[in-house]
Amino acid sequence: MRTGVWLVGARGSVGVTAIVGLSALRAGLAETIGCVTELPHFREAGIPPLDALVVGGHDIVDTPLQKRAEELGAAGVVPADLVSAMSAEIAEVETDIRPLPGGATQADIAEAVMADLTEFRNRRALDELVVVNVASTEPQAPGDPAHDDLDTLRAALRQSGEVLPPSSLIAYAAFEAGCSFVDFTPSTGARLPALDSLARERRVPYAGSDGKTGETLVRSALAPMFAQRNLRVNSWSGTNLLGGGDGARLAEPGANAAKTQSKSKVLESVLGYRPQGVTRIDFVEELGDFKTAWDLISFSGFLGTRMRMELTWHGCDSALAAPLVLDLARLTAAAQHAGRVGPLGELGFFFKDPVGTAEASLADQWAGLIEFATGLAPA
Amino acid sequence: MRTGVWLVGARGSVGVTAIVGLSALRAGLAETIGCVTELPHFREAGIPPLDALVVGGHDIVDTPLQKRAEELGAAGVVPADLVSAMSAEIAEVETDIRPLPGGATQADIAEAVMADLTEFRNRRALDELVVVNVASTEPQAPGDPAHDDLDTLRAALRQSGEVLPPSSLIAYAAFEAGCSFVDFTPSTGARLPALDSLARERRVPYAGSDGKTGETLVRSALAPMFAQRNLRVNSWSGTNLLGGGDGARLAEPGANAAKTQSKSKVLESVLGYRPQGVTRIDFVEELGDFKTAWDLISFSGFLGTRMRMELTWHGCDSALAAPLVLDLARLTAAAQHAGRVGPLGELGFFFKDPVGTAEASLADQWAGLIEFATGLAPA
Amino acid sequence: MRTGVWLVGARGSVGVTAIVGLSALRAGLAETIGCVTELPHFREAGIPPLDALVVGGHDIVDTPLQKRAEELGAAGVVPADLVSAMSAEIAEVETDIRPLPGGATQADIAEAVMADLTEFRNRRALDELVVVNVASTEPQAPGDPAHDDLDTLRAALRQSGEVLPPSSLIAYAAFEAGCSFVDFTPSTGARLPALDSLARERRVPYAGSDGKTGETLVRSALAPMFAQRNLRVNSWSGTNLLGGGDGARLAEPGANAAKTQSKSKVLESVLGYRPQGVTRIDFVEELGDFKTAWDLISFSGFLGTRMRMELTWHGCDSALAAPLVLDLARLTAAAQHAGRVGPLGELGFFFKDPVGTAEASLADQWAGLIEFATGLAPA
Amino acid sequence: MRTGVWLVGARGSVGVTAIVGLSALRAGLAETIGCVTELPHFREAGIPPLDALVVGGHDIVDTPLQKRAEELGAAGVVPADLVSAMSAEIAEVETDIRPLPGGATQADIAEAVMADLTEFRNRRALDELVVVNVASTEPQAPGDPAHDDLDTLRAALRQSGEVLPPSSLIAYAAFEAGCSFVDFTPSTGARLPALDSLARERRVPYAGSDGKTGETLVRSALAPMFAQRNLRVNSWSGTNLLGGGDGARLAEPGANAAKTQSKSKVLESVLGYRPQGVTRIDFVEELGDFKTAWDLISFSGFLGTRMRMELTWHGCDSALAAPLVLDLARLTAAAQHAGRVGPLGELGFFFKDPVGTAEASLADQWAGLIEFATGLAPA
Ligand SMILES: NC(=O)c1ccc[n+]([C@@H]2O[C@H](COP(=O)([O-])OP(=O)(O)OC[C@H]3O[C@@H](n4cnc5c(N)ncnc54)[C@H](O)[C@@H]3O)[C@@H](O)[C@H]2O)c1
Ligand SMILES: NC(=O)c1ccc[n+]([C@@H]2O[C@H](COP(=O)([O-])OP(=O)(O)OC[C@H]3O[C@@H](n4cnc5c(N)ncnc54)[C@H](O)[C@@H]3O)[C@@H](O)[C@H]2O)c1
Ligand SMILES: NC(=O)c1ccc[n+]([C@@H]2O[C@H](COP(=O)([O-])OP(=O)(O)OC[C@H]3O[C@@H](n4cnc5c(N)ncnc54)[C@H](O)[C@@H]3O)[C@@H](O)[C@H]2O)c1
Ligand SMILES: NC(=O)c1ccc[n+]([C@@H]2O[C@H](COP(=O)([O-])OP(=O)(O)OC[C@H]3O[C@@H](n4cnc5c(N)ncnc54)[C@H](O)[C@@H]3O)[C@@H](O)[C@H]2O)c1
Ligand code: NA
Ligand code: NA
Repeated sequence: MRTGVWLVGARGSVGVTAIVGLSALRAGLAETIGCVTELPHFREAGIPPLDALVVGGHDIVDTPLQKRAEELGAAGVVPADLVSAMSAEIAEVETDIRPLPGGATQADIAEAVMADLTEFRNRRALDELVVVNVASTEPQAPGDPAHDDLDTLRAALRQSGEVLPPSSLIAYAAFEAGCSFVDFTPSTGARLPALDSLARERRVPYAGSDGKTGETLVRSALAPMFAQRNLRVNSWSGTNLLGGGDGARLAEPGANAAKTQSKSKVLESVLGYRPQGVTRIDFVEELGDFKTAWDLISFSGFLGTRMRMELTWHGCDSALAAPLVLDLARLTAAAQHAGRVGPLGELGFFFKDPVGTAEASLADQWAGLIEFATGLAPA
Repeated sequence: MRTGVWLVGARGSVGVTAIVGLSALRAGLAETIGCVTELPHFREAGIPPLDALVVGGHDIVDTPLQKRAEELGAAGVVPADLVSAMSAEIAEVETDIRPLPGGATQADIAEAVMADLTEFRNRRALDELVVVNVASTEPQAPGDPAHDDLDTLRAALRQSGEVLPPSSLIAYAAFEAGCSFVDFTPSTGARLPALDSLARERRVPYAGSDGKTGETLVRSALAPMFAQRNLRVNSWSGTNLLGGGDGARLAEPGANAAKTQSKSKVLESVLGYRPQGVTRIDFVEELGDFKTAWDLISFSGFLGTRMRMELTWHGCDSALAAPLVLDLARLTAAAQHAGRVGPLGELGFFFKDPVGTAEASLADQWAGLIEFATGLAPA
Repeated sequence: MRTGVWLVGARGSVGVTAIVGLSALRAGLAETIGCVTELPHFREAGIPPLDALVVGGHDIVDTPLQKRAEELGAAGVVPADLVSAMSAEIAEVETDIRPLPGGATQADIAEAVMADLTEFRNRRALDELVVVNVASTEPQAPGDPAHDDLDTLRAALRQSGEVLPPSSLIAYAAFEAGCSFVDFTPSTGARLPALDSLARERRVPYAGSDGKTGETLVRSALAPMFAQRNLRVNSWSGTNLLGGGDGARLAEPGANAAKTQSKSKVLESVLGYRPQGVTRIDFVEELGDFKTAWDLISFSGFLGTRMRMELTWHGCDSALAAPLVLDLARLTAAAQHAGRVGPLGELGFFFKDPVGTAEASLADQWAGLIEFATGLAPA
Repeated sequence: MRTGVWLVGARGSVGVTAIVGLSALRAGLAETIGCVTELPHFREAGIPPLDALVVGGHDIVDTPLQKRAEELGAAGVVPADLVSAMSAEIAEVETDIRPLPGGATQADIAEAVMADLTEFRNRRALDELVVVNVASTEPQAPGDPAHDDLDTLRAALRQSGEVLPPSSLIAYAAFEAGCSFVDFTPSTGARLPALDSLARERRVPYAGSDGKTGETLVRSALAPMFAQRNLRVNSWSGTNLLGGGDGARLAEPGANAAKTQSKSKVLESVLGYRPQGVTRIDFVEELGDFKTAWDLISFSGFLGTRMRMELTWHGCDSALAAPLVLDLARLTAAAQHAGRVGPLGELGFFFKDPVGTAEASLADQWAGLIEFATGLAPA
C-alpha cells in the first residue's frame, strides 16, 4: 500500500524532523525509538510499512529543507551527522514540496490545493494520501454560520473574503480530493460541522487535534492515578517555557489561548471536576526547541491531609512530535483503506484535544488504540 | 456482613491513622478522600460497608492508642481536633488490642495468636476476619527448606528456634484460624510455598505485598507512558527521604534492601528492560511522616535525542496508607465470602510487589481491580 | 528607648503575624527564628529590644485581630495554640488600631492620620515612632508633576481629587508628624522626589520597598554566584503561585505589574545584563499563604556548554515577612535616634527594590547592614 | 611570565577539556565564559595571561589526547568542531605528556617526577611551574606517623612500601623541585604536616582541595542566606547522580567517603550547626559527564513555621572544572612569583574543602579572593 504523507508546513521543525527521521529509519541509520506503530502490538495491524511512505507537502516559506535540517542538527534536535548522510533523500523530498497556492477566492485556492494533491497522488502512484497539518498554530478563528452547513459553506467559499481559516481550507481541499486529514495542531482544521459532513460525503476519515507531546501527555498518564486513588486534586498549575518557531507563535495571545484551552481539558475530563490553577505558555527564545514544563499539583488525602507533587519535563518538542506524525499518517491511511469514515476517536492517544471521543486517560486511549489497530488487520 | 480487621502493628502510624479515620468516617466527621472502595465503581460490589468493620489487633508495644493518635495529630498526619472528638471510639478499639503473645516454640506462639483471633471473632460475632500486617518491616529472612513444604514446616515450628520470620508466623496462624491475610509490608508474610499450601488447604485468600503509596505508585502510573510511546528510558533514579518509625526501621540495611528491591521491580516489569539508576531510602528524622521522593528519568526519543523528566512527591505516608488498609480489608473479606482462595493477584493495584500477578502497570491493575470487584457482586 | 510600630494594614496577614509573634517572643513562648536583629551581630548595635516595642496601626477593615489570628492559626501560618495563649496581648493591641481616616481633601486625611500618630506617641510615651506600610499592594500610580516638588504637592493636597496614592499619603503624614517610614510593599510610598524633600526637611529617615521574602531573596543570594564564576545566564524564568489576600490583589494586572517589575531588577543589577525569561505571579486560592515559586535558570559554561538549574521554594509568606517588619522597625527607630535622615540604603538587605542603593547582591547587602548597625552603636 | 601548568591526570576529562579550551581561547575561537580570572576584577592583578601558559603533564594511561578530546566532543562536553580545529595545538601538548614514572622506592619515583618537571621547565624556559592534580580521586589514605614529620617522611620514602598516597608523592616531588602545587581533587595531596613543612622549606605556595563546581558551590552561595535571615535549617539532604570516569571512581566506597565528607563541611561551617540529612553520590553511567544534583532543604521560620526549598543542578562537570584549573594555575603562579609560601587560604573560593582557611561562605571567599588578587598586583 503506497501511502502519501502530505505535510502542510513541511518546512517547519516538526515537518523536517519527520522527513530526516523517515529517511534515516529507511536507511537503517536510526532506531525506531519514539515510533508507536513500530511496537510489537502493531505488527499484525496491516498498516503501511515505513518503506511505503512517500512525503510531499506545502509551505508558505521557501527555505530549503536541507538548510532547515542543518539548523535542526546544530540545535541538537536531530543528529548533525544524520543530516549530512541523508542529503540525497532530503533533496528527493524537496522536489515534492509546493508553495501554498493563492487564488481570487477561497474556492480557487482549494481547487489549486486539490490539483497539487491529485498530481502528487498520480505521479507517485499512491494508494492512499493523508494530509497532515503541521503548520504554525493559527489564532482562534471567529465563528461563521457557513461553518455549520456544507452547502452554505460551498457558496461562501466562492465569495471574496475568508470564511475558513487556512487549516480548515486545507481540510476542505483534502476531503474534496478524497484524502484523509490529520490535524497535529490546535488550529480549527476539520472541526466544523460542514467539514464533518464533507468528510462523510467523500467517505474519508480524519483525526486530530494538537499532538500530545509534553505536559498534557504526562497529565493524561498521571491524573487517572489521583482519580483512581480517590485523592482530591486541589490545584494543578503549569508553566511551559519554550523557544523555537512554535514558541514565538504561541506567545501571540490568540494562539496561546487556543493552546492553553486544549491543555486544560484533560484534567477536568479525567478528574470529573476542574481543579484550581493556571496553565501558562511563555516564549523564551534561547530555549529553542527544548521545552521545559513544570507542574505543581496540590492534593488532599485521607482526613484532608495536604500533600504535593511537582514535575519537570525537559523535552525536545520536534523529536517527540515527528515520529507521531509518521504514526498518524500510517494509521489514518490504514483506516481509510479499511473504509473508516469521519472522526477517528480511537487515535485520541496522540492528541491533546481529541476529536470523536471523550476519553482523556492515556491508559484508556492506549487500550482503544490497540483495539482499533487490531480491528484494522486484514482477516 | 460483620467484618473483623485485625491489625498486626495496631499501635503504629498506619494502624492508628486507620483507626482514627474509620471512626471519623462513621461519625460523618470526615470525607471519604483516599478510600478507593468508596468510589462509585465499587457501589455494587457487595463489599462490607465501613459501618460493618470491627477493629482489633496485636502490637509489641503498649503505648495507648490515644497517645499515639495525639502524636499523629501534633505532627499534622491527622487533624488534631478529630483525635479529641474520637476519643471514645478510640478507647473502644483499645479494648481489642492484645500484646503479641510469646511461647516456648513458634508453634506455641501460633496457637496463642489463633486463640486471640478466635476469641475476637466469637466475641464480636464476626462473619469474616481479615488479618492485616502493618507491623514494622522485618530484615530479609534467611531461606529454609521448611519454607517449601507444609508438613516440614509444621514439624519445624514445634522445634525451638525461629524457622519463620514474625510476619510469616502471623500469616500461618491467620490461615490456621481460617482468616484471610493481607500483607501491607515488604516482609515475607505469606510468600512461602508452605504458607500458600496452607491457605489453599484452609480455603482462604491472601493479598500483598507492601502498600503502594508514593514513588512506586507514581512509577506504575508513569512508566507505561514511556513504554506506550516507545521512548527509551536510559536511567531512572530515585531518592526517598523519610523520618518516622518506619523511616528509622528502613534505614537499617536489611529492611532497606527488602524495600528498595520491591521498588525496582515495577520499572523492569513495565518497560521490559531494566534502566540504569539507583533507588535509595534515607532516614531524615525531622521529616517525620512526610516523605519526599525525588526521581530523575533520563530518556531518549526519535533519532536518539536525549530528554529528562524529574518529579518530586511530598506525601504523608500514613495518610496515604491508612485508607488502603480499610480498602484491602473490605475487598479481601468480600473475596473470602465469595469463596476465593489463595493469592489475590487482582489486588495488585494496592501493592508495590504484588503476589499472584505479573501486572505492574497501574492502569492495567485498575482495570483488573474493577473487574474483580464487579465479579464479587452477588448476582 | 520606647519604640512605636504603627502598622498600616495592621489587620492583614503580615500585620497580625507580627503582632502575635511579638507577643509570643516577649512571653518566652517562641524562639527568635527569623528575626535578623536577634543574631549576635546586632547585639551591640543599640537597637531597641523587643520588649520596648509598642504596636498600633490603621486598617480599612474592622475584622478583630483575634479573629484574623485564629484564621492564621487554622491555616498553619502561626501555631494555633499560640493564638489562644496570646489573646490578652492581642486584645491589648486591638485598642490601638484605628480605622483609616477619611476627609474632604487629601490634606484633611493627612491631618487626621497625623493626629492618630501623635495621640499614640503621646499616650504611649514613645521615644520614636516608625510607620510601617503592610497594606495591600496598590495599582501602579499615574505620574503627576506635583510628585516632584514639595510646595506643588502641598498645594495639590488641598484640592479635591487624589494626587497621591494611599501609600504615599501615609508617608507624607508620617514625615509631617516626625515619624520615620518603612514601606514593606511595592506601592509608591515615599519614593517621590517631593516626599524625599519632606523627609529631609523633617529630618527623618525612611526605608523600602517591598519586603524580600521568597524568589527574589533566593535570586539575590544565587545570582552573584553566576557572576563571580563568569557563567553566562541565558535565561532566568520564574513562576510564583500564591493564594491569600495578597495573592488575590497581586492577580489584578496593575498590582502584578508593580510586583513583577521589582522582581526583575535584581538579576539585571547583579549580572550586569538582562537574561531572557519571564517572571509570573499567579493567584491559586487554595494555596493560601503558602507560596510556591519555581525558577528555571539556563546558563552556559566553558566553551559554551549549556547547563541548567531549577529551584522550588515553598515558603509561608507571612511567617517570612513578619519578623522582618519587627527588624525594620527596630533598625529604623535606631537610625532615627542616631540622627539618620533620608533613604536608608543600608537596609537594602530586606527589600526587593531597595531605595537609596544600587546594591543587589545579598552578601553585599548583608555586609552593608552589619556595618550600618555597628555604626549605630553608641560610642 | 612564562608559566608552566603540569597536569597530573592530563588525559582525564578535566585535563583534556582544559587543554582544548586553552587552545581555543588563544585562537580566539571561544569566549572566556567560566574563566574567573578573565573578569574585570583581575585585570590589574599581575597574573600571567592565557598566552603565557604552557601545558604538560603525567598520566598512567596512554590514550592520545586527541582521541580523548574527540570523545568529549561526541559527548557534548566540548564543541566537536573545536576539537578538529585545535588538533595541531593538541598534538603540540601531546609532546609534553609523560607516563607517570615508576621506581624501586617512593623516593626513586619522586626523583623521576622531579626530573620530568625540571626538564619541562628548562626546555620550555618557564618562569614558574605549577603542578595541578586532576588525577582520579584516591581512596582515603591510612594515617602514618611519617606524615607528621618531614625527616621521618624522607627516611620512610627510601624504604620499600607506600608511605604516601600517589597525590602526596606528587606534591612532595613538586615541592622538592621548587614548584607550587594545586590539588583539584579530594585526595590527600599536600595536606600532611610533613608536606606543609616541605613547602615552607622550599618557599613555595600550595592550594586545594577538591574543585567546587556543583552542589557544594550552590550550597556555599545559598547557606549564608539561611544564616543571615536567622532561618533554622532542619535538614539539608543531597543526591548526586553522575557517570563519567570520575563517577565510576567515586562509586567506590573509599573515594565516595572522601568526597561526601568534603561536601558536608560547608553547611556546618556556614550555619554553625550540622543540619540533619544525608549527601549521596551515585554512579549512573549513561549520564556521562553531565551530573544532576538534587537538594532538599527543610527549614523553619518565625514561630517555627515549616518551609522547604528544593534545587536541581544539571551541570557538565568538566566544563565547570576546566576553566578553574586555568584560573588556579594562573593565580598560584602569580602568588609564587609574589613570594607567597604555604597554603593559599585566599583561593578557598575554588574549593569544596579549602586548605588554609575556615571561610566557607562563597561571598566571603569571593571578597577574600579579590583582595588577594589585588594584593598581588605589582605596585
Ligand atoms: N512539536 C510539538 O511537540 C507539537 C505538539 C503539538 C502541536 N504542534 C504543532 O505543530 C505545528 C508545527 O510546529 P513546529 O514546531 O514545526 O512549528 P514551526 O514554526 O517550526 O513550523 C511551522 C511551519 O508552518 C509553515 N506555515 C505557516 N503557515 C502555513 C500555512 N498556512 N500553510 C502552510 N504552511 C504554513 C511555516 O512556514 C513553518 O515552516 C504547530 O502548530 C504546533 O503548535 C507541535
Ligand atoms: N505508610 C506507608 O505509606 C506504607 C507503605 C507501604 C508499607 N508500609 C509498611 O507498613 C508498616 C507500618 O508502617 P508505620 O509507618 O505504621 O510504622 P510504625 O513504626 O509507625 O509502626 C509499626 C508498628 O508495628 C509494631 N510492631 C513491630 N513489630 C511487631 C510485631 N512483630 N508484631 C506486632 N507489632 C509489631 C510496632 O510496635 C509499631 O507500633 C511498615 O512495615 C511499613 O514499611 C507503610
Ligand atoms: N508576606 C510577604 O512575604 C510580603 C513580602 C513583600 C511584600 N509584602 C506586602 O505586604 C503587604 C501585606 O501583605 P499581606 O499578605 O499581609 O496582605 P493582606 O491582604 O493579608 O493584608 C493587607 C491589609 O491591608 C489593609 N489595607 C488595604 N488597603 C489599606 C489602606 N489603604 N490603608 C490601610 N490598610 C489597608 C487590608 O484591609 C488588609 O487588612 C502587601 O502589599 C504585600 O505585597 C508581603
Ligand atoms: N570535574 C569536576 O567538576 C571536578 C570537581 C572537583 C574535583 N574533581 C576531581 O578531578 C579529578 C579528575 O576528574 P575527571 O573527571 O577528569 O576524571 P577522569 O577519570 O576523566 O580523569 C582522571 C585521569 O587521571 C589519571 N590518573 C589516575 N591516577 C593517576 C595517577 N596516579 N597519576 C597520574 N594520572 C592518574 C587517569 O588515567 C585519568 O586520565 C577527579 O579526582 C575529580 O574528583 C573534578
Ligand atoms: Na525539579
Ligand atoms: Na523540583
